[in-house]
Amino acid sequence: MVASDGKDLGQSGLDIDLGNACSRTAYGWAKRSFQNRWNKLGMPCLGQEGGFSNLMDYGDLRIAMSSDGIGTKVELAERTGIYDTLGFDLVAMTCDDLVANGIEPVNLSNILDVDRLDHRVVDLLMKGLHDAAKHANIAVVGGEIAELGDRIGGWGTGMHFNWCATAVGVLPKGREPIDGKAIQPGHAVVSLRSRGFRSNGFSLIRKIMQKQHGPQWHKAMADERRSWGEVLLSPSLVYSPLVVGLVREGCPLHGVVHVTGGGLADNLGRVLAGNGLGAHLDEIHEPQAFVRALQTLGDVPEEQAYRLWNMGNGMLLVMPPTDVEAACKFAARKGYMARPCGRITDTRHIVIETRGCHPTELVYE
Amino acid sequence: MVASDGKDLGQSGLDIDLGNACSRTAYGWAKRSFQNRWNKLGMPCLGQEGGFSNLMDYGDLRIAMSSDGIGTKVELAERTGIYDTLGFDLVAMTCDDLVANGIEPVNLSNILDVDRLDHRVVDLLMKGLHDAAKHANIAVVGGEIAELGDRIGGWGTGMHFNWCATAVGVLPKGREPIDGKAIQPGHAVVSLRSRGFRSNGFSLIRKIMQKQHGPQWHKAMADERRSWGEVLLSPSLVYSPLVVGLVREGCPLHGVVHVTGGGLADNLGRVLAGNGLGAHLDEIHEPQAFVRALQTLGDVPEEQAYRLWNMGNGMLLVMPPTDVEAACKFAARKGYMARPCGRITDTRHIVIETRGCHPTELVYE
Repeated sequence: MVASDGKDLGQSGLDIDLGNACSRTAYGWAKRSFQNRWNKLGMPCLGQEGGFSNLMDYGDLRIAMSSDGIGTKVELAERTGIYDTLGFDLVAMTCDDLVANGIEPVNLSNILDVDRLDHRVVDLLMKGLHDAAKHANIAVVGGEIAELGDRIGGWGTGMHFNWCATAVGVLPKGREPIDGKAIQPGHAVVSLRSRGFRSNGFSLIRKIMQKQHGPQWHKAMADERRSWGEVLLSPSLVYSPLVVGLVREGCPLHGVVHVTGGGLADNLGRVLAGNGLGAHLDEIHEPQAFVRALQTLGDVPEEQAYRLWNMGNGMLLVMPPTDVEAACKFAARKGYMARPCGRITDTRHIVIETRGCHPTELVYE
Repeated sequence: MVASDGKDLGQSGLDIDLGNACSRTAYGWAKRSFQNRWNKLGMPCLGQEGGFSNLMDYGDLRIAMSSDGIGTKVELAERTGIYDTLGFDLVAMTCDDLVANGIEPVNLSNILDVDRLDHRVVDLLMKGLHDAAKHANIAVVGGEIAELGDRIGGWGTGMHFNWCATAVGVLPKGREPIDGKAIQPGHAVVSLRSRGFRSNGFSLIRKIMQKQHGPQWHKAMADERRSWGEVLLSPSLVYSPLVVGLVREGCPLHGVVHVTGGGLADNLGRVLAGNGLGAHLDEIHEPQAFVRALQTLGDVPEEQAYRLWNMGNGMLLVMPPTDVEAACKFAARKGYMARPCGRITDTRHIVIETRGCHPTELVYE
């Protein structure tokens, strides 16, 4: 597997090494605080390998928290004036991280930081969060709106904001977390189609757009009907209700991969690393036409595009081959597009065959 | 009780009416999402009056989430270069809101939004969070660091950031939430001394400082030893371990008031409103000398100061008079300064006798 590093992703303007170092430091301090709950309710649980899982022991229940924001995708709402879809991105970023471990999302609390308040915009944002919460079967049980003046910046003259949330989920009694440890060579990989970009990789997207279409790039048409602003704002598809449904139906999901920063290879690689396995993906979904168009506009190499964006594949599910047909049918009934896209190998490599105009085989070691 | 409105607090630059309207709108949308968990785990519980409490039903447990940030107090860290105390403000804002309902804080997840990363600053922030978590007996089980470029602003040339968190707490089996419903006339009010400003009211503080001491106001000396930057950064005292301890000791706490924006009157008033009671507080703690000095510099009327800031009293506890002595002794053993400061009345008024240089009686109806 290719390690994430600043050089590779330099085009996006972010120093990945520094980001990883800061995350490790933060985790180091957090881990020392685990002892505060030793043998008490809320104690972080150990995973199968002896390391900490992201679950806490609440007696009969195990509970998990997932915190995330929607990053600079907010600028698309500021540019288009469309505010009622970002709630789906916020729910996707938090709840889909929970189901990636087999945890059922239950409640969510959100924090909206604004420079100054616009009641209409707040109303639209919260309506979108309500809609997404309904889709995900969660209750929004907390929220905070903070006016931070010029500590918050953004595009244009409207209300600027950053939005983040914490979702809480449970691992029902008697159920084991999904951690990839039961994955074996020969298992099938099923890909769930995305709607476009989720909430990551927008730094590079904005750079490409700015260069191609100037400061008002969001108004340029992406296709015959829709502007670039509209297509790039396409809300994240929230996968958590599907995954919860599959688990409850008895589908033996051994790995669930939420494809965020790092793309298919990095995120799948993290799940496979513990077992020293690899994968060969030869039938993944093709990205949306506008994703390919953006990639072409920015002259982004296939490998980089597949490391930075989900490229049409927002979540991967690993299961025995005999369960694939039923799982895909179940997904279709719930309105998701699922397809078998490859298999687990014992090679430690991840091979992704991309198609599009220039078929390429990407190999990650 | 004087209603919070923009006119009263205009000096701080925030429109309180608009803020309240936006909060009500957000709550309205959130409330509609409660049905998503109807008769399921994670369902918001009803309080004694039939309205929703901030607890969720998790089977044998009731759980609460509290989300908040530390607002513009962050600028004090940017100005002084002292980063390892803000964690106490973050823990105070989230955990002390939980114990205000008798809920024991257990876990916390944080989100740090930055313009660009500075590893040293991240390390210091997370060390402070670790220290505060130790004080509060909670485990920091989640975190996210987001690089948002010029969506984040701040003072000076260092890393700019905004910091928020969600704490999760539990109401142990068999215990009832503290919601003020059991408060009766004649009950005693105990005040817990604060260390200075917590994480609210900083807009006005900065305005006063700027006007008095110019752009480098943080370097001006507040007293013989410390600069204004240092004293204003004084970390919030986290009360949650004391309140949890008192409840476990059997102290019959009928009301717990976390004194944040709105000050003593608004926050106490909210707890008393359900019963139509009032209070007469004639022995509250005097504010720190630097708080009085700031008030004088800004020519802030006593009433406004007591509505915007905690003025030396960060938390109020309501209990039967017979329990006061034991509670104050317990607090002293735990290192907190507690004093009986008044009593509950049947008048619907809150009367606060302030002392300092100009003794005043503030009456809130």
